Amino acid sequence: MSLEQWVRKAVWQMAGYTPGEQPRGHQSFVKLNTNENPYPPPKVVLDAIANEVDGLLRLYPEPSSLAVREAASRAYGVHPDQVLVGNGSDDLLTMIYRTFLEPGERVAYPDPTYTLYPALATLQGAEAVGVPWLEQGELPVEGLVATQAKVVIIARPNAPTGHVVSLDLVARLCRLTSGVVVLDEAYGDFATDAGWPLLSRFPNLIIIRTLSKSMCLAGIRLGLGFMPKEMAFQMHKVRDSYNVDRLAQAAAVAALNHLDAYRPIIDAIVQEREKVILALRQRGFQVMDSQANFVLATVPNGRRSGHQWLEELKKEGILVRYFGSDPRLSDKLRITIGTPEQMERLLDAVDGLLQDNT
Amino acid sequence: MSLEQWVRKAVWQMAGYTPGEQPRGHQSFVKLNTNENPYPPPKVVLDAIANEVDGLLRLYPEPSSLAVREAASRAYGVHPDQVLVGNGSDDLLTMIYRTFLEPGERVAYPDPTYTLYPALATLQGAEAVGVPWLEQGELPVEGLVATQAKVVIIARPNAPTGHVVSLDLVARLCRLTSGVVVLDEAYGDFATDAGWPLLSRFPNLIIIRTLSKSMCLAGIRLGLGFMPKEMAFQMHKVRDSYNVDRLAQAAAVAALNHLDAYRPIIDAIVQEREKVILALRQRGFQVMDSQANFVLATVPNGRRSGHQWLEELKKEGILVRYFGSDPRLSDKLRITIGTPEQMERLLDAVDGLLQDNT
Repeated sequence: MSLEQWVRKAVWQMAGYTPGEQPRGHQSFVKLNTNENPYPPPKVVLDAIANEVDGLLRLYPEPSSLAVREAASRAYGVHPDQVLVGNGSDDLLTMIYRTFLEPGERVAYPDPTYTLYPALATLQGAEAVGVPWLEQGELPVEGLVATQAKVVIIARPNAPTGHVVSLDLVARLCRLTSGVVVLDEAYGDFATDAGWPLLSRFPNLIIIRTLSKSMCLAGIRLGLGFMPKEMAFQMHKVRDSYNVDRLAQAAAVAALNHLDAYRPIIDAIVQEREKVILALRQRGFQVMDSQANFVLATVPNGRRSGHQWLEELKKEGILVRYFGSDPRLSDKLRITIGTPEQMERLLDAVDGLLQDNT
Repeated sequence: MSLEQWVRKAVWQMAGYTPGEQPRGHQSFVKLNTNENPYPPPKVVLDAIANEVDGLLRLYPEPSSLAVREAASRAYGVHPDQVLVGNGSDDLLTMIYRTFLEPGERVAYPDPTYTLYPALATLQGAEAVGVPWLEQGELPVEGLVATQAKVVIIARPNAPTGHVVSLDLVARLCRLTSGVVVLDEAYGDFATDAGWPLLSRFPNLIIIRTLSKSMCLAGIRLGLGFMPKEMAFQMHKVRDSYNVDRLAQAAAVAALNHLDAYRPIIDAIVQEREKVILALRQRGFQVMDSQANFVLATVPNGRRSGHQWLEELKKEGILVRYFGSDPRLSDKLRITIGTPEQMERLLDAVDGLLQDNT
């Protein structure tokens, strides 16, 4: 027998998800490629983690992340038993696929969106169906319902576009679909509204959040899932027994207990986002309105392709994200919103390249 | 539609794996129920973690845990590309199932063993086949080969028995089976030998290790898988992109760079284990020889059942593990080896209960 005979065919044929580049010695780069927060976590959060670095690390963490669920309960007004904690929101997505999707069953999502959704379908042996966004990026409710998918996922704000769909249409989808609806609010804190009011109204709705973006803790890996209690009970069975470590739990409790400390950080990013959108438009980029901590910018007509912009910005020490394998995105760059200083460096580099273009 | 129609049948019917109790305020208990290390991690490891608690936590970790793979390479004499890092070894087991097992395919293991092996099979829609240990706990090579399993798992030392099979028989299994062999060495550092010499000999062998037991870092969640490079390449596709956080990576690098700091800890546990085995035998328990950091003890004939021993020891402030749902184990307790002081408290409690028995 050989490796090819041991490995599942679906896995063998996969290329695997390629995360954005994490260069060693990244301090010298302006890193605008993986939607991290440019600001460090508040001191109260770092202190809470440091405080947990002691001999008790010899002991397993609380299996269900109870203290995190209680903190999330206080922060968001839900019951602790409605909360499921994951090793990042990717872990929650994996748990969702493993809880609901038999081989051959369907997962649907408006497209283009987060490329992990189809990748996880392949792993689970499920069928992934992308339904194009309607004009103006509105939610294709009827198209999604027509797929008869067991699971429908909506990223809100969406990646890589940054736009949001109306919550009324999300509610309509929850009513009409015969499946489970996942509202992926990884970037929700940067938007003007969120799905909380829908949570108690629909027995088939799951909301996902993460500490990686607005909470400045991508290095910690912690995601939060919100859903009816009975559903959370089922999903716990699929969870690795000790999926979230002690330090991540401590970080999450501190962050959720101090949401006020994040307000200035989130406000600064939102404010900077609006300035950058205008500045890029002035320079000939088409930029979609965004409610996330990134923007999707179509490069100006000219001699440089999207890929060339990526490469030349990198030469200038600036990393952005490029999704060249999708023809709908091949003339676009996804740019994370950094500090004002970082965005000034981006715009200076853009100006330099545009001059060089003439 | 209702929840029962959304949830996969296999999940709906599962009870879910029950981890050993992690009581809040556990400091007042002598905790001998989840095979944690009674000693804190070495200072050099705690310092390395603390050193990483800074603003860079806003950034994602290196996706493939490269620094950990390099440290493991130096520690164990393998190539970094032979190493796969998991969020605990349970994460590695999940990745193994998802890489190799199609629905309906078989995973086999000598039985009784770690109860997660069949639980993960259920989740993956695979068939779990337990093959009874031979006399004296030797490996049932022919029985395992006859299952035609795609994956065969051997815990060495085994849980909950603590015994080891001969490496010659493991090698024989690797030669004869048409599937992949997983040697789960979660407790390997407490044994007199390990599977390293087999690794380069067989293209179908995976060795799993964890930092949870000998390395005093159960609270951190980090597992190591060792296998041929080509196999690791396939398994990376199944891995969550950022499955191991920054602090866990820092902890693992420090631990692997300072294996010498663990020698006194491991020696103390092994020495205490041998003393406890004798002491329990003197008190009428039947205790199997163990090469792990726990022992499996059959309770003395008398008026107390295994479950009653569990409960009465708990009243005395001592937590041990009991697997009552398996009739082969219902008269047995699995007792983690703690510090000499903790084991004295255990033996005092046992003496008290035995007197009370007469």
